[in-house]
Amino acid sequence: MKTLAELAASQQLIFKGDGDLSIHSVATLQSAQPNQISFLANPSYTKYLSETKAGAVILTEEMATNFSGNALISDNPYVTFAYIAQLFNPPTKSTNQIHPTAVLGTAITQQIEVGPYSVIGQETQIGSGSIIGAHVSIGDGVSIGKECVIKTGVKIESGCQIGDRVILHPGAVIGADGFGLARGQKGWVKIPQTGAVVIGNDCEVGANTTIDCGAIENTVLEDDVRLDNQIQIGHNVTIGKHTVIAGCTAVAGSTSIGKNCMIGGGVGIVGHIDICDGVTIQAMALVTHSIKTAGSYSSVSPLQPTNQWRKNAVRARQLDQIARKVNQLEKKLND
Amino acid sequence: MKTLAELAASQQLIFKGDGDLSIHSVATLQSAQPNQISFLANPSYTKYLSETKAGAVILTEEMATNFSGNALISDNPYVTFAYIAQLFNPPTKSTNQIHPTAVLGTAITQQIEVGPYSVIGQETQIGSGSIIGAHVSIGDGVSIGKECVIKTGVKIESGCQIGDRVILHPGAVIGADGFGLARGQKGWVKIPQTGAVVIGNDCEVGANTTIDCGAIENTVLEDDVRLDNQIQIGHNVTIGKHTVIAGCTAVAGSTSIGKNCMIGGGVGIVGHIDICDGVTIQAMALVTHSIKTAGSYSSVSPLQPTNQWRKNAVRARQLDQIARKVNQLEKKLND
Amino acid sequence: MKTLAELAASQQLIFKGDGDLSIHSVATLQSAQPNQISFLANPSYTKYLSETKAGAVILTEEMATNFSGNALISDNPYVTFAYIAQLFNPPTKSTNQIHPTAVLGTAITQQIEVGPYSVIGQETQIGSGSIIGAHVSIGDGVSIGKECVIKTGVKIESGCQIGDRVILHPGAVIGADGFGLARGQKGWVKIPQTGAVVIGNDCEVGANTTIDCGAIENTVLEDDVRLDNQIQIGHNVTIGKHTVIAGCTAVAGSTSIGKNCMIGGGVGIVGHIDICDGVTIQAMALVTHSIKTAGSYSSVSPLQPTNQWRKNAVRARQLDQIARKVNQLEKKLND
Repeated sequence: MKTLAELAASQQLIFKGDGDLSIHSVATLQSAQPNQISFLANPSYTKYLSETKAGAVILTEEMATNFSGNALISDNPYVTFAYIAQLFNPPTKSTNQIHPTAVLGTAITQQIEVGPYSVIGQETQIGSGSIIGAHVSIGDGVSIGKECVIKTGVKIESGCQIGDRVILHPGAVIGADGFGLARGQKGWVKIPQTGAVVIGNDCEVGANTTIDCGAIENTVLEDDVRLDNQIQIGHNVTIGKHTVIAGCTAVAGSTSIGKNCMIGGGVGIVGHIDICDGVTIQAMALVTHSIKTAGSYSSVSPLQPTNQWRKNAVRARQLDQIARKVNQLEKKLND
Repeated sequence: MKTLAELAASQQLIFKGDGDLSIHSVATLQSAQPNQISFLANPSYTKYLSETKAGAVILTEEMATNFSGNALISDNPYVTFAYIAQLFNPPTKSTNQIHPTAVLGTAITQQIEVGPYSVIGQETQIGSGSIIGAHVSIGDGVSIGKECVIKTGVKIESGCQIGDRVILHPGAVIGADGFGLARGQKGWVKIPQTGAVVIGNDCEVGANTTIDCGAIENTVLEDDVRLDNQIQIGHNVTIGKHTVIAGCTAVAGSTSIGKNCMIGGGVGIVGHIDICDGVTIQAMALVTHSIKTAGSYSSVSPLQPTNQWRKNAVRARQLDQIARKVNQLEKKLND
Repeated sequence: MKTLAELAASQQLIFKGDGDLSIHSVATLQSAQPNQISFLANPSYTKYLSETKAGAVILTEEMATNFSGNALISDNPYVTFAYIAQLFNPPTKSTNQIHPTAVLGTAITQQIEVGPYSVIGQETQIGSGSIIGAHVSIGDGVSIGKECVIKTGVKIESGCQIGDRVILHPGAVIGADGFGLARGQKGWVKIPQTGAVVIGNDCEVGANTTIDCGAIENTVLEDDVRLDNQIQIGHNVTIGKHTVIAGCTAVAGSTSIGKNCMIGGGVGIVGHIDICDGVTIQAMALVTHSIKTAGSYSSVSPLQPTNQWRKNAVRARQLDQIARKVNQLEKKLND
């Protein structure tokens, strides 16, 4: 429980209204109660502001001028909301207990928590404050930093290196073999995948996401890379700082993605290309070539009723013919 | 082993031919033997009907008139086949045994089965007749209904609520953190994901599918929602009764999908939109806006030989120019 | 450590330069050191050849004529590189040890390795030299061949059959229920999925990939099929010899894919169709009909800056109208 004035002070922000108001949690504008704080960041939710029962709302100065209730004034209401939500919901702390069923190939020297039935290999180091969930499998020679959270059923293969404050969500697989095959006369010949995965500080890897180890050198995520669920990162990919990737996206091998990129969900990025810093890729686009200019890129056909789509799809197959015909008509008309 | 007459009676249907015929299992038209029953539902398999060795076939009245063999007459042969297949292959029953290696944070009060190395948290309730497989991880304060089947390696995070007769297939992750991040000055700030996942009765969640917990409120699947494998459901999504979603589809956060929808495989649905009841989305379409009218929607470019595709793809980038030129030609020609 | 001459002899190839040069490992052209061997297969890396510090490079005869360093001459440098990399990095051998925590429903009669907390069902057979990792779950009546590697957290459901030298990567699910539902009057009726998955010799299944069991008959992968991560294979699919499929692709039920196909990443293939031998599908294409001619197929819209894409997308919805107008203009002009 905090007062509005205390919340404002904690974020070095000013407030408007009743500073003594007690607030115990965060809520959406639609569901908030009088001792909850809410926020307005997405303009499409502005309609809910006038009717909210929230005790206080995090707003920009401009938005606050038209709001009669209590407000916490922020240049970036969404990030202020994030900090205040963290304040009311601090991350779970390590219990510093090793479950007796954990199979440890390495002496645990730091204060960490290890859940039931987890298996940790030899010469593996885990930094203090880290929490390893249940059914986690960690190979040999792995290095994990401080205050990481490795959730249930995560698999980390041998040799991978993980920074501080990294969160790996349930079922994520770090360091499985890359898809490296050469076609021989009798069939496919597997290329040993001997690199590792190196993950920087403050990264997050979503549930059931897979990051392949490098073929020879490493697959690399720089600091503060955030990956959603069900993503596939191929071998020898590198992803720059602060880049975020939404769910179900696939990045093929040896591709490099710059810093501060925002990659939508279901995107495909082919192998052996470079994407520069500051690129946004819209959902489900396919990136087939290197991108050298920051900006937003798209490729998907627009959604249509299937009956209408069917007619247009026939024409899409004839597009080159149609364009040639238009050019001929133009020539004929000009002659 | 049942006679054709017994099978007909069990489904309150009539049959044609030898009611004393003994049938011991179901089979496809192509592989069926004389004491098996088959069905015809997909018209593209009609060609196999005349040559089938099946002892009996489930057919509509119309199809049966042209069929000389034994038939079970149904308005909906596929659903009748489903019930008869269930009759010959009843679901596995709980053994009501708790494997001695299961780690239980809660006293088990109901007759349930728990497999080896599963871990169940505190204040978690599981209804009678439910089967928990091996390597399952269930958090604290979870509620699971009666006669559920939670298969090997499923992860259910704390606070989730699951109805009766729900099947969670291997590797499914229920209640991992949603992808909630705000961009601060130094990097991404994580928004605590404090909601749960609420799953109704008779739902099914496919292998390695992930359903994120809500950010503040819950992610909700109403009764009889059926999800295939490798699906990603974002935080605060709601999915209406009887909706089915095929494999590898991704639904972004805060989107609402209506009842009786059929969403194809590999579909992408962006966040913060509403899809009304009775919508069909064809495979791999991207839904970028709310849909207010029931019906079928598509968006994908048609498949073409790559050589031909390459020519058309160049023109697709010039489509607006082409359309403008056509309008100019039309104007010129009309003048 | 091998000399260049020994490496050449091991592959029955000739070399150019210093046969006594000692080589201890493989490396990329960019990072190789004087006692490492590298290769050039992808033409876009030719630029690195002149500057490489590699002790020797695997090259075609033609490429070697312009290269002043030591070379190993091969018609197929990439496959030669694969064999030499295997020579320096031989696959891990079975320790032939069963971890005491393994739960065995079957007497282990062969020399195999089983990791901690794995669970193996009744009447299941595993061939000699196979390695079962940690947290693996194998059902009843499963058959696994010789020298297989079943990595951590793999789930194999009852009745599945797996050949020799198969590698299943972490988190793969073999034999989960297919997505078989019939629409009854009150809701969906589940069709029991009673078939199995049959996997040939020398196959590879990627991390978190899912292969559903057949509905009645089996889902089949022939020999030397290679599947990347996060793939979904529906029930009753059959995949021919030597076919490779890249990450995040989905194949719907009852579809048959021929031999020697190369299916890109993020591809969708609808159900109940046949794809002939020798077909290449480019990344993220959607295959909606059977393919009867070998060759390369594509369907995706080309990537564009979003501003430009928006204009073209509007026109894509009008494409049929545009084409009709062009035909009318043509007619008018010809009259």
